Amino acid sequence: MQIPVVRNVLEANEKLADQVRRRLSAGKILTLNLISSPGAGKTSLLERTLRDLAGEFRMAVIEGDLQTDNDARRVAATGAQAVQINTEGGCHLNSSMILQALENIDLDGLDILFIENVGNLVCPVEFDCGEDAKIALLSVAEGDDKPEKYPLLFNLARAMILNKIDLLPHVDFDTRRARNFATRLNRDLAVFEVSCRSGQGLESWYDWLRAMRAAKRDGVLPGQEASA
Amino acid sequence: MQIPVVRNVLEANEKLADQVRRRLSAGKILTLNLISSPGAGKTSLLERTLRDLAGEFRMAVIEGDLQTDNDARRVAATGAQAVQINTEGGCHLNSSMILQALENIDLDGLDILFIENVGNLVCPVEFDCGEDAKIALLSVAEGDDKPEKYPLLFNLARAMILNKIDLLPHVDFDTRRARNFATRLNRDLAVFEVSCRSGQGLESWYDWLRAMRAAKRDGVLPGQEASA
Repeated sequence: MQIPVVRNVLEANEKLADQVRRRLSAGKILTLNLISSPGAGKTSLLERTLRDLAGEFRMAVIEGDLQTDNDARRVAATGAQAVQINTEGGCHLNSSMILQALENIDLDGLDILFIENVGNLVCPVEFDCGEDAKIALLSVAEGDDKPEKYPLLFNLARAMILNKIDLLPHVDFDTRRARNFATRLNRDLAVFEVSCRSGQGLESWYDWLRAMRAAKRDGVLPGQEASA
Repeated sequence: MQIPVVRNVLEANEKLADQVRRRLSAGKILTLNLISSPGAGKTSLLERTLRDLAGEFRMAVIEGDLQTDNDARRVAATGAQAVQINTEGGCHLNSSMILQALENIDLDGLDILFIENVGNLVCPVEFDCGEDAKIALLSVAEGDDKPEKYPLLFNLARAMILNKIDLLPHVDFDTRRARNFATRLNRDLAVFEVSCRSGQGLESWYDWLRAMRAAKRDGVLPGQEASA
């Protein structure tokens, strides 16, 4: 009895995710779904990115949290559009929530839409939100074994951001070990080592965003239909 | 259609959790369910605790992970009994898994059973594993807003361990803010500030374990029926 219900939930989610994707692709809006443990630094990464690229791109953020609008306030302070989804205990965002959130975003002329998922390395990975790519964040304070222990995210993500590298002298984290696990699962994974505190390494992440945005605009993002 | 199914899953879980609790209470075994984000330091806390209290208590660990038996190997290296549950993608442990794991543990003369749940601040909180108490771990690298953003765990836990306090000089974490959020939710919450790396603060945690174990033995744990 249970398995068909779960399957229907996932199927219903896929259909709505396709609606989200069609709508955002019509505007050539690059859409990225950020997934990590609680406290890995998704919001800090967005704050830096939104400020540093404000002159280049129009960007908006959909924030997902069980409770509070703390994160939406933080990103709105950068001047970007922000919408908060409260899941009221739910462990992940889904495409139906994204469709509702889009009603509150001015998509006109938007270049990049970030979705900050609920902090959770497991459940958000299974629910397509209509994004072009998932981005996995991992704080070096969490340990280098996380790609091995939570493989699905690192397998499906298009980029992995190792954050808080300013803490490397103070923790036991072998960057090469984390990279090796993750890239063995996923040969095409782009990896960035950054500190949102010091700003170190962010330029490579920005270059990747620029390339992804250009590919989306030109309709040549892998997995995207080339537009005439 | 979906809600009744979910309710049945939770109800079925409660029934098996009662079975687990009866079985462990018959042996006066204190059972603690450790819940945290990935990488907050549950396994490191267990490694220290199992080594430091090896002369005082007989202890065993049930490890929950999506994949790998890394954590069970780490705790078994201390000499404690360890059983690994692999959830194969599942985001939490449940009482049916615990019942199966108990088949592989020698309960005779056991004082304390630790359950290390899947790294996830959301889903494990909703599934009773038959424990006497939930323990919430929070690494100071995760941010002081976590009790506010993930309130259910901090509301239901009997103790909160703020781990990795050796990193406090290098991160923006206001210990008082985290404590205030958590204890406002839960006035009876015991709070420990520890570093599993340096050993700082562990003695208070051990004293609490000793008191809980004595209360369990004497049948006076709050919520426990006094045994004659």
